[in-house]
Amino acid sequence: MEIKRPSDSITTMTNIVMPNDTNIVGNLFGGTLMQWMDICGALAAARHSRNVCVTASVNNISFAKPIHLGETVTLISRVVRAFNTSMEVYIEVYAEDVRVGQKRLCNDAYFTYVAMDSDYKTVKVPAIQPLSDDEKGLFELSLLRRQLKLLMAEKIQLRDAPELKKQMEDWLKNSG
Amino acid sequence: MEIKRPSDSITTMTNIVMPNDTNIVGNLFGGTLMQWMDICGALAAARHSRNVCVTASVNNISFAKPIHLGETVTLISRVVRAFNTSMEVYIEVYAEDVRVGQKRLCNDAYFTYVAMDSDYKTVKVPAIQPLSDDEKGLFELSLLRRQLKLLMAEKIQLRDAPELKKQMEDWLKNSG
Amino acid sequence: MEIKRPSDSITTMTNIVMPNDTNIVGNLFGGTLMQWMDICGALAAARHSRNVCVTASVNNISFAKPIHLGETVTLISRVVRAFNTSMEVYIEVYAEDVRVGQKRLCNDAYFTYVAMDSDYKTVKVPAIQPLSDDEKGLFELSLLRRQLKLLMAEKIQLRDAPELKKQMEDWLKNSG
Amino acid sequence: MEIKRPSDSITTMTNIVMPNDTNIVGNLFGGTLMQWMDICGALAAARHSRNVCVTASVNNISFAKPIHLGETVTLISRVVRAFNTSMEVYIEVYAEDVRVGQKRLCNDAYFTYVAMDSDYKTVKVPAIQPLSDDEKGLFELSLLRRQLKLLMAEKIQLRDAPELKKQMEDWLKNSG
Amino acid sequence: MEIKRPSDSITTMTNIVMPNDTNIVGNLFGGTLMQWMDICGALAAARHSRNVCVTASVNNISFAKPIHLGETVTLISRVVRAFNTSMEVYIEVYAEDVRVGQKRLCNDAYFTYVAMDSDYKTVKVPAIQPLSDDEKGLFELSLLRRQLKLLMAEKIQLRDAPELKKQMEDWLKNSG
Amino acid sequence: MEIKRPSDSITTMTNIVMPNDTNIVGNLFGGTLMQWMDICGALAAARHSRNVCVTASVNNISFAKPIHLGETVTLISRVVRAFNTSMEVYIEVYAEDVRVGQKRLCNDAYFTYVAMDSDYKTVKVPAIQPLSDDEKGLFELSLLRRQLKLLMAEKIQLRDAPELKKQMEDWLKNSG
Repeated sequence: MEIKRPSDSITTMTNIVMPNDTNIVGNLFGGTLMQWMDICGALAAARHSRNVCVTASVNNISFAKPIHLGETVTLISRVVRAFNTSMEVYIEVYAEDVRVGQKRLCNDAYFTYVAMDSDYKTVKVPAIQPLSDDEKGLFELSLLRRQLKLLMAEKIQLRDAPELKKQMEDWLKNSG
Repeated sequence: MEIKRPSDSITTMTNIVMPNDTNIVGNLFGGTLMQWMDICGALAAARHSRNVCVTASVNNISFAKPIHLGETVTLISRVVRAFNTSMEVYIEVYAEDVRVGQKRLCNDAYFTYVAMDSDYKTVKVPAIQPLSDDEKGLFELSLLRRQLKLLMAEKIQLRDAPELKKQMEDWLKNSG
Repeated sequence: MEIKRPSDSITTMTNIVMPNDTNIVGNLFGGTLMQWMDICGALAAARHSRNVCVTASVNNISFAKPIHLGETVTLISRVVRAFNTSMEVYIEVYAEDVRVGQKRLCNDAYFTYVAMDSDYKTVKVPAIQPLSDDEKGLFELSLLRRQLKLLMAEKIQLRDAPELKKQMEDWLKNSG
Repeated sequence: MEIKRPSDSITTMTNIVMPNDTNIVGNLFGGTLMQWMDICGALAAARHSRNVCVTASVNNISFAKPIHLGETVTLISRVVRAFNTSMEVYIEVYAEDVRVGQKRLCNDAYFTYVAMDSDYKTVKVPAIQPLSDDEKGLFELSLLRRQLKLLMAEKIQLRDAPELKKQMEDWLKNSG
Repeated sequence: MEIKRPSDSITTMTNIVMPNDTNIVGNLFGGTLMQWMDICGALAAARHSRNVCVTASVNNISFAKPIHLGETVTLISRVVRAFNTSMEVYIEVYAEDVRVGQKRLCNDAYFTYVAMDSDYKTVKVPAIQPLSDDEKGLFELSLLRRQLKLLMAEKIQLRDAPELKKQMEDWLKNSG
Repeated sequence: MEIKRPSDSITTMTNIVMPNDTNIVGNLFGGTLMQWMDICGALAAARHSRNVCVTASVNNISFAKPIHLGETVTLISRVVRAFNTSMEVYIEVYAEDVRVGQKRLCNDAYFTYVAMDSDYKTVKVPAIQPLSDDEKGLFELSLLRRQLKLLMAEKIQLRDAPELKKQMEDWLKNSG
């Protein structure tokens, strides 16, 4: 099976924040931004897998930095890890007041997608080969997040997740 | 300061899945559902705090059970824990084909909201008093999730999160 | 055939009034509210009949109390009378500024729906058994409204509508 | 004060029925059509009164003739009676499959609007002078509908509505 | 084959400029107006040809006169020339502040549509017979525009477009 | 005043074609695509000028290649010529079925935008320095298009447009 790089699936999406996208404080709704992230991420997954992709799960998203009415929002997504039939996609969100011209990173998040064939059955997806140090870091973290999600949902035991077990031992050791 | 119960903030929202809400497989977009969840959760937070609430963060959401075109989606949200100026809201999503008449639980998730006054400054919110066993369980888990999020973002050390530290020690002991 | 109660079909819907929902005075468009009422009512009818329901007619709606930008609108619908293949649904509309926390009744109306099977033919629907006094009052009025509508459309003669005839005689007697 | 004719306020609106406008049977939602009617009627009222107009009430609407996905909908509205600060607008709805080229009348309804000045106070509107027989017929019926609405809402007594009282006496006489 | 007049296909469309239709300056987006023009023009073409029509091309549109939030926009379209399977449609855009009551012409443009039968093959359309002087002027200009478009796209030579060639010779003669 | 290159303003936008974006043939509406092009072009102009930009005019757009429901549409825009307070933006539209993975160029067009300061007055914009041969070709054509538009609108005489006059003389010479 084919091996691809994260850069092969990079997808860029641009939106302007319109009145109906904002809450009463004049900032972009968190829910509207999540909807945009979901579409941008699904396209990266589709480009990686050459199949229709449906959202399987979303990891933590933090909305610490508000985005304002009339600003331009740029979303950039790419597949950072592939697991058999699913892919983890990393999505960055930048906001920009074009009159000032400086983009600021407002959010980033991981969405997981599953590839489906034309009979709506899940299908295997190409593997990912991270090359740069950045790509390798995202690749490692992706596994820990997946193991933690399964452990908290009581779908695996910690003994089935050696990388997470080692991380927890490190945390406990450092906590004195 | 006032103390409230989770049941004081319960908010119910109903939507029908329309063509533009569905992907090419005919299922509700994950992103569209997240947008609905965000609005439903913000209303529960607003009812708890009597202030405008903006989304601060979203915990894991899983989309294991697809929702189909034409189905009715019912969202139910309530505040399960309050921390100074923020609230954790638990949101359940049920789908229903009215011709069959059985609701099925499709998703649940935790969204965190921050209350703001009319000058858009964060304000203190009422405390939560869980009464039923269910409410107490959600209350405990809420703290663990918060500590884990801060630890992974390297904003706290494990020694600052005694409840999470104890949970990790349990996991490690059970893993042999 | 099955007999149901009005409470079996209760449906709750919540919306926030967004900028595009408001006229130049900053109030919710009457037409947008009617659209929301129609969906909320159709769901109650579908829950009563376990079939897809299409709107047959709408009785008088009055918009005396404006609803403002940013307010939360709660719609509650339930079937109050069933006639062979059609149902009359009573819909109440409440508005609420969450910062104040008091719901006010803004509108109520009756919508009539017809149930259709999967071949798009009309089908019989379960009968309604009103229990409380409130439910019984709505049940009586529903018949008068239906007879009046048919009379004004010249589809029946007054002699075919004994309940309405009696009401008219009462009105005339009281008018001196 | 100025006197206008119904034809001075005629407003024509055209829409295509899109997928999101249709129910699962493939027909235009009643609620969506009401939203279009409300906008078309408000424009006629605004043209009559030269002021912003808000919806005050809606009389019976019947949806006996379905309108299908992809069809063209033409709405035509005009003011048929003016009462101090309010206007009754008559709205006709025609559907047309452009490939066939025949318009069919699908609905008609009466919406009542109130004119507001720039301080959002109600203002007097010009009187209406019906000229054609058609216009005169609509003018007479408009008064009966208004009296019936007030009577059923228990805001007037039948003795305050001589035209309606006479109509009821006619109905009762004819019913034997 | 049937011959029709421009007036047979006249289509009127009315919209109110809503918050989401406006840019940060409070004026109607050019792109939103183009979308409305496209629908209004497609309906005129469909009425002329009694077939579904798809947009083939758009000629110059100028947006010199801004249209403001809350104004009423009236679009009027009619087929001015027919070429085998395509039609040129002339679209006028008027804006109106109903409180003032004066319509002003804001834009006009030519859109070209192609008629398709139910197998999505292009089909011949009826010819156009311009009668009034206005209609004849639009008819002549339509041909020049078409020839110029083909020439600049290098799809024809000037020798294949005698009407345009004559116009260019006139321009050059007048330029001294 | 600053001089910029076309590449400084490149803006990429991605959309999925949804049911409500398609005509009855299942293809993307021309009007919807124009709306997307307008937003994408306005962002490139805003990035070039560091000001809000409003659409001034649109040149010919041809819709020869249909785009289908569910396909991904990528728009790429950049400023190719600047004239005092206005900019000509070149916009390319690519469609892609992600399951196949090949982008095809479907449309290209020129939109002209005007920059406005915070008082909604037009402002001077930076000049453009084309560097590559491609950029230079677009730069030359932009002037001819502008002169032709002004000539046909009878706002200039051919003698005021020496570049266009020379082009017409060439066309006439070549036409024999």
